[in-house]
Amino acid sequence: MPLEILTETRSHGGTQGVYSHPSKETGTEMTFAVFVPDHEPREKLPVLWFLSGLTCTHANVKEKGEYRAACAEHGMIFVAPDTSPRGNAVPDAEDEYDFGKGAGFYVDAAQEPWSKHYRMRSYIERELPEILAAEFPADMHRQAITGHSMGGHGALTIGLRNSDRFRSISAFSPVVAPSQVPWGEKALGRYMGYDRETWRAYDTVSLIEDGARHDHILVDQGTADNFLDEQLQTHRLASVCETAGIPAEIRMRDGYDHSYFFISTFMADHVAWHARRLKSEG
Amino acid sequence: MPLEILTETRSHGGTQGVYSHPSKETGTEMTFAVFVPDHEPREKLPVLWFLSGLTCTHANVKEKGEYRAACAEHGMIFVAPDTSPRGNAVPDAEDEYDFGKGAGFYVDAAQEPWSKHYRMRSYIERELPEILAAEFPADMHRQAITGHSMGGHGALTIGLRNSDRFRSISAFSPVVAPSQVPWGEKALGRYMGYDRETWRAYDTVSLIEDGARHDHILVDQGTADNFLDEQLQTHRLASVCETAGIPAEIRMRDGYDHSYFFISTFMADHVAWHARRLKSEG
Repeated sequence: MPLEILTETRSHGGTQGVYSHPSKETGTEMTFAVFVPDHEPREKLPVLWFLSGLTCTHANVKEKGEYRAACAEHGMIFVAPDTSPRGNAVPDAEDEYDFGKGAGFYVDAAQEPWSKHYRMRSYIERELPEILAAEFPADMHRQAITGHSMGGHGALTIGLRNSDRFRSISAFSPVVAPSQVPWGEKALGRYMGYDRETWRAYDTVSLIEDGARHDHILVDQGTADNFLDEQLQTHRLASVCETAGIPAEIRMRDGYDHSYFFISTFMADHVAWHARRLKSEG
Repeated sequence: MPLEILTETRSHGGTQGVYSHPSKETGTEMTFAVFVPDHEPREKLPVLWFLSGLTCTHANVKEKGEYRAACAEHGMIFVAPDTSPRGNAVPDAEDEYDFGKGAGFYVDAAQEPWSKHYRMRSYIERELPEILAAEFPADMHRQAITGHSMGGHGALTIGLRNSDRFRSISAFSPVVAPSQVPWGEKALGRYMGYDRETWRAYDTVSLIEDGARHDHILVDQGTADNFLDEQLQTHRLASVCETAGIPAEIRMRDGYDHSYFFISTFMADHVAWHARRLKSEG
């Protein structure tokens, strides 16, 4: 698979790279960012995935996420994919920040015209891991996943559906029940169609109701987040985890909002939390 | 003095603010960023100034500088001014990234049409400190200064000219001898005129040759910096400090470039280095 190096920059005792490749899943060129700490020859490092939120690309967390110092300290690779397919061939909803490009919601779309390119679930679950395993010093037996907002939804749903692969799951300000909030109802309705049964695989609360389980879930949520009441509704996750007996750690952070000023504040905590779980033998 | 709060955002156990005010020096509205860690009522905190480089505003380091965790740890206020006056009334060199708006070079210009608004020396040395002392919990007896590239030049020259005020001076990839390199010859020539004697107050190497001294100078410089040979010429600072008996610590960082990926790598080091010098009684 031809991988193009767009940039590789020395930072925090490692290499921050940006790469692109033709994706079979999305039918487009896809760009992603990877930070690799310095390491011994032939050493394989654990991997932390970060899925970004609405309107973002791979670049937002790369510039504002403040993860490199912690990843270097813990010897962890950090992977930041894009949030949707890109390019002129990809259908879009140009005036809508919460649908189309920049808003793939980590689903494999079932409805025309979205289903041809919007295959972010398979891209993140299958295609990009193969590239990572082939091209980077990644120990694919030690993976963890996190994300922000729409990407927190992505991390929780992908992590829960693949609990054997991801030893730990965390999220910043995640959308926990897209089936029940405006962002999610719009996106799932148009990508998947209006049979709500097909939405359940893309809804954290539904997945847990349907039996998904994970012993290592961490969520940070700011109390001053403008989206908390309408779109995020963290209490629904707390409630379903309590019912299911899942020991999720959900921390409400007083005065913090939805921005990278919040994410960057707790990023090092999340990296350390995942590192503790990835260092133990699986 | 009317200070407008543009944003105040909780981050890293403190408040990241962006403010604007009408400046008497520049004759324009000026914007700056301040991070204030949580502190006791009536407590005054030491202050670290950060002067940014060509093309930057207050926002670049705010988003990409990764200083907040270290400033919160050390209880230090972090101030990031803009790099030039702004607005339609301000003359500019529109196609030149290294002159005019975004490129004030921290001088008080002496030549028309620049001299009316381009008064960044007096703005940073006199006006903004008054606002800081009046409006923030700043201990003006404990100040330090740093900066990047053109702003490293600003930090070194302002720090050396005001060595009683700034207990420590550091810089990332600074322009150390503007009189002898293209960026500086162009800027000083047009802002100050072609009598090179007037340039000496705006040239770190010249200031030291003319007797300026400081016991606490720290510089980090990447070896893979594209501007090192032509514009930065770190060796000139090392040489003049050695001749003058100034114990400057100049660290060449293997493989690092000129970007915020470099700055953010060593930012926490610089904050801690300044904190050690600001915590001792003066």
